[in-house]
Amino acid sequence: MNITILGGGGFLGRKIAERLAASGKLGDHAVSSLILFDLAAPAPLDAGFQVTCLGGDVADLPAAAIPDGTDVIFHLAAVVSAAAEADYDLGRRVNLRGTDALVDACRRLSRPPRVVFTSSVASFAGGQDANLPDDARQMPGNSYGAQKAAAELVLSDASRRGFIDVVNIRLPTICIRPGAPNKAASSFVSAIVREPLLGLETTLPVPEDFAVWIASPAFATEWLLHAATLDTALLGTDRGINPPGISARVGDMLDAMERARPGTRGLVRAEPDSTVAAIVGTWPASFTATRSPGLGFVRHGNLDALIAEFLAHDLEPTRRMRGM
Amino acid sequence: MNITILGGGGFLGRKIAERLAASGKLGDHAVSSLILFDLAAPAPLDAGFQVTCLGGDVADLPAAAIPDGTDVIFHLAAVVSAAAEADYDLGRRVNLRGTDALVDACRRLSRPPRVVFTSSVASFAGGQDANLPDDARQMPGNSYGAQKAAAELVLSDASRRGFIDVVNIRLPTICIRPGAPNKAASSFVSAIVREPLLGLETTLPVPEDFAVWIASPAFATEWLLHAATLDTALLGTDRGINPPGISARVGDMLDAMERARPGTRGLVRAEPDSTVAAIVGTWPASFTATRSPGLGFVRHGNLDALIAEFLAHDLEPTRRMRGM
Repeated sequence: MNITILGGGGFLGRKIAERLAASGKLGDHAVSSLILFDLAAPAPLDAGFQVTCLGGDVADLPAAAIPDGTDVIFHLAAVVSAAAEADYDLGRRVNLRGTDALVDACRRLSRPPRVVFTSSVASFAGGQDANLPDDARQMPGNSYGAQKAAAELVLSDASRRGFIDVVNIRLPTICIRPGAPNKAASSFVSAIVREPLLGLETTLPVPEDFAVWIASPAFATEWLLHAATLDTALLGTDRGINPPGISARVGDMLDAMERARPGTRGLVRAEPDSTVAAIVGTWPASFTATRSPGLGFVRHGNLDALIAEFLAHDLEPTRRMRGM
Repeated sequence: MNITILGGGGFLGRKIAERLAASGKLGDHAVSSLILFDLAAPAPLDAGFQVTCLGGDVADLPAAAIPDGTDVIFHLAAVVSAAAEADYDLGRRVNLRGTDALVDACRRLSRPPRVVFTSSVASFAGGQDANLPDDARQMPGNSYGAQKAAAELVLSDASRRGFIDVVNIRLPTICIRPGAPNKAASSFVSAIVREPLLGLETTLPVPEDFAVWIASPAFATEWLLHAATLDTALLGTDRGINPPGISARVGDMLDAMERARPGTRGLVRAEPDSTVAAIVGTWPASFTATRSPGLGFVRHGNLDALIAEFLAHDLEPTRRMRGM
């Protein structure tokens, strides 16, 4: 299989690449080549197949990023929520024009490739009262979510026309993200657990009974890999997948952290932030996600497993990344 | 009020322009100027206010089409269903890039104008069994509908950001369209009534119990004019309107025609067309449309009124147009 990862230098793109390198396979198929594309050429990767690292603008996609014979494209290239809100033109260029460029690149291929597109929970509204069904309308309250929902429509139509064969995965908020806090409104969702596990103090901008729809990096990666080899005949015309994340109360996340590392809960200080609460308050707290498990998307583990995953795989890399 | 109609040379654009010219007003406000923009400059219009006719590409919108001080923009410029299906690039250029160009033109203005966007029933699926609620998901089965739904997302987001103040009207299939049959899959919906009323034979490609969600030209025009002065504070974040059209069985349309002009029903010959049936079979047959009447969108008249409207206003112009 010849695979391209757009956004291959990012956190999830790298996780996918490392999984492919470790197994040499995607599903039952041996990987022949991997192209990692990002704004700056991603770092090289050791693998038992050819890996090419390319830098460039996804909205002006070079033909070399998606050569003829490409079987699978993971499309993770995006300007994320806070950045798309701060810079309308940049968000539109990358999140919409980048998707058009992907479609056009695929139209030049001899056969339509599988495209796995990372859409987002941010494309929905509903807030704390929501438990959204699989056919819920996407009515985003932010530019990032609007661009993701519009891109889903464009990709689903391109799929119906036979240019590509798409699966749109609406990822939950990823938690626990490695690395450092950032300016995203959702930054606290990871920070309230990651920072104390690093021995650092942090603040909680929302009440402890605030619920978020989350997934761990490992489950998100697993779902994206599954989407790459899923029999799309099972999807019919509905190419949107709400994967089976978990709805977690913030207080329960802190309790799970305290169980794993006693004493850490005391490092979290309540500091209500009405600006953050206003933004994240519109995001749906829960989905029924009844369709995706039937399509083979594995059910998410509990909060203790989520903490354990971070401790086992992402704590030390985070320490190194932050020079700790 | 300074008004621009993008797609001002089209059938509905012209109806709006003529209504404005006849009354000199939009809602309670006197019209100061009207710009009619279309691919070819629209024909001049007599009015008690300044009318400017401009030709050009909506995806490369000239600044003169939306000058500073514009209060209301009717955005009807579109590549319609059959054409967008036949030419992917053209549909994307006009239906998506044209919408972006509109947003960018509005960002240059001193104050955000009202934008009335004509979206479409084609942005929904559901078929003959559907009676779609107001919060139904848009899952289009054609490129035109996908582009309209994506444009709604972009315009709603631009509205949330304060660039514009949008109302997205999902128009039903317009019936009875004046003029001649065309290659649109929905062409028969008007033709089965229009052609016999002109004394011409025609064919019916679907069974008589096939139901369509329709609106007359006069009701569609009325809704678009209402949307231009509606208090959008009443809409909240949901800027999409399913106006109160009617769900009509094809057989009932033919019966109403026969009541109005005895003998016409015999001019309609059943000629099942599986290609047409496959396309129009995915369109929703009905909407609950409970929200729009509460927002002041007038309820549609019955089929007898729809036939009477055509006989009174569009039959003779159609005869002239077709040299009959």
